Amino acid sequence: MFIKSDDHETVREWISELSVLQTDLEIRVWPNVDPIEDIDFALVWDPRLGDLARYPNLKCIGSLGAGVDHILKDPGLPEGVPIVRLVDQQLIRAMSEFVLLHVLRYHRQQPQFEAAQRESRWITLPPPNTGETRLGFLGLGELGRDAAIKFRALGFDVAGWSRRLKQIDGISSYSGQDGLAALLERSHYLICLLPLTAETRGIINRRNLALLPTGAFVINCGRGGHVVDEDLLSALDSGHVAGATLDVFHVEPLSSSHPYWRHPRVTVIPHASSLTSARSGAPQMIENIRRVRAGEAPMNQVNRQAGY
Amino acid sequence: MFIKSDDHETVREWISELSVLQTDLEIRVWPNVDPIEDIDFALVWDPRLGDLARYPNLKCIGSLGAGVDHILKDPGLPEGVPIVRLVDQQLIRAMSEFVLLHVLRYHRQQPQFEAAQRESRWITLPPPNTGETRLGFLGLGELGRDAAIKFRALGFDVAGWSRRLKQIDGISSYSGQDGLAALLERSHYLICLLPLTAETRGIINRRNLALLPTGAFVINCGRGGHVVDEDLLSALDSGHVAGATLDVFHVEPLSSSHPYWRHPRVTVIPHASSLTSARSGAPQMIENIRRVRAGEAPMNQVNRQAGY
Repeated sequence: MFIKSDDHETVREWISELSVLQTDLEIRVWPNVDPIEDIDFALVWDPRLGDLARYPNLKCIGSLGAGVDHILKDPGLPEGVPIVRLVDQQLIRAMSEFVLLHVLRYHRQQPQFEAAQRESRWITLPPPNTGETRLGFLGLGELGRDAAIKFRALGFDVAGWSRRLKQIDGISSYSGQDGLAALLERSHYLICLLPLTAETRGIINRRNLALLPTGAFVINCGRGGHVVDEDLLSALDSGHVAGATLDVFHVEPLSSSHPYWRHPRVTVIPHASSLTSARSGAPQMIENIRRVRAGEAPMNQVNRQAGY
Repeated sequence: MFIKSDDHETVREWISELSVLQTDLEIRVWPNVDPIEDIDFALVWDPRLGDLARYPNLKCIGSLGAGVDHILKDPGLPEGVPIVRLVDQQLIRAMSEFVLLHVLRYHRQQPQFEAAQRESRWITLPPPNTGETRLGFLGLGELGRDAAIKFRALGFDVAGWSRRLKQIDGISSYSGQDGLAALLERSHYLICLLPLTAETRGIINRRNLALLPTGAFVINCGRGGHVVDEDLLSALDSGHVAGATLDVFHVEPLSSSHPYWRHPRVTVIPHASSLTSARSGAPQMIENIRRVRAGEAPMNQVNRQAGY
């Protein structure tokens, strides 16, 4: 097997966690993968285009993150090799924490209180009614579902949009283009936890933003590619969107000259909503390596057609 | 009956909500209470010292907030008149939201990300492990209990200190002076939701702060009187306490010259953690008025001895 990430710390952590679990596992670090005939499992983040087609005996591709857009974007991806993603309970929990923090931060007017503190000014701001505050999740997969349930428990009015309708207690489910419009029209908070696919790329665009009620907030923890930056900036400039918290960007790190950094209505988070943890992810990768070597089907397989 | 608050908006809202529920209720607005023989129920916030002893037919004193320190501080309070506090589900929910926001804000390093954004700087800050993050609640009454359970559901390690030991699933319970020391020593976050009584006044003092682990955070949503300001400021100056979010103060509004406003480690919130809502509080006051007029015992009676 080999591991590929541009972040040396990630590579070190994964090697350490995998080796603890299986001491005789031979792990090569890309690009030092020769002889390529030995490679049966590729554990990757953002592989070089065309690279994964080079390994004649590749049995499985594992993603070092929950998303797999960084793998599927390769037009030369070998057919028939299963792709597995990481389903990491710690990542799910960290993402829900992040979304809780950033919705509550706007809901409880924290930016206004901080502005008042800078002027030593005591202000009175009654908080909005929680039960009348409507959250709309784009994506009700592992991440969206967990966050939606936690907000429901706090008393928010929660809905979600997903490829297929979902049955989740107390959460309204929407699907399809009409469902998307209906979700947008009711959402004081739009929270994107979608996978990046051909269908979802650019979903946060002028037309869809216009459907949100005036003064809505946008929180993007999906991918930078979900947002049409110019459209979001113009909705923020006009005040139609009251605030945006963005954790992901088209190019990361976000260029220091990008207008997001200095926009008074934008909170930039440096892709920190939720980190894949080698410690919590390694056991399922060890199990998947065992399975594919034993000729069994791996867990958490990606549906290439759906794109996640 | 009469209502007394210095905030005109509060008076208006309560009169409106009470009158909707009982159209024939005669409500006087303090100080226009004559003839005083008519007054059987006093619904008050911060009554004038000695005033409540003036009403020969007073059957019950109702607090316009969850706390009753503003009533009990009166040395001339008439004996034998029951005092009832507001147990408001909306207030409890709003308080838990507030504590969730402010713990998560520090836990997920939001002040650091905001500082980095001001410099258009992309930083990498791995989040602390939630399961290893220990919260200590001072007070496990209606408010502390609800917040503690919600943090437990997010995976935090949660404990609480209260006058009597409490049985709450998954929450460690401490009591007494030794229990207080044990709670303080383990708490990365100290969250005060205590009533202000003779026993709890000044509980956030030099000796107790010194027991917290270095780098702990303090969140006070109890009363300003729980904190010895000089002691907290010196613990913040030394860095022993890494941050404090304060919602309540000895004197409110907080004077614009108070050092809290400009301290880089203090977040000042203008007593906004949780507001009593006339809409959600009026039904229980109507029921209490009915009860005392019918000669029945009112609900949510305060134990004067305990101070809450």
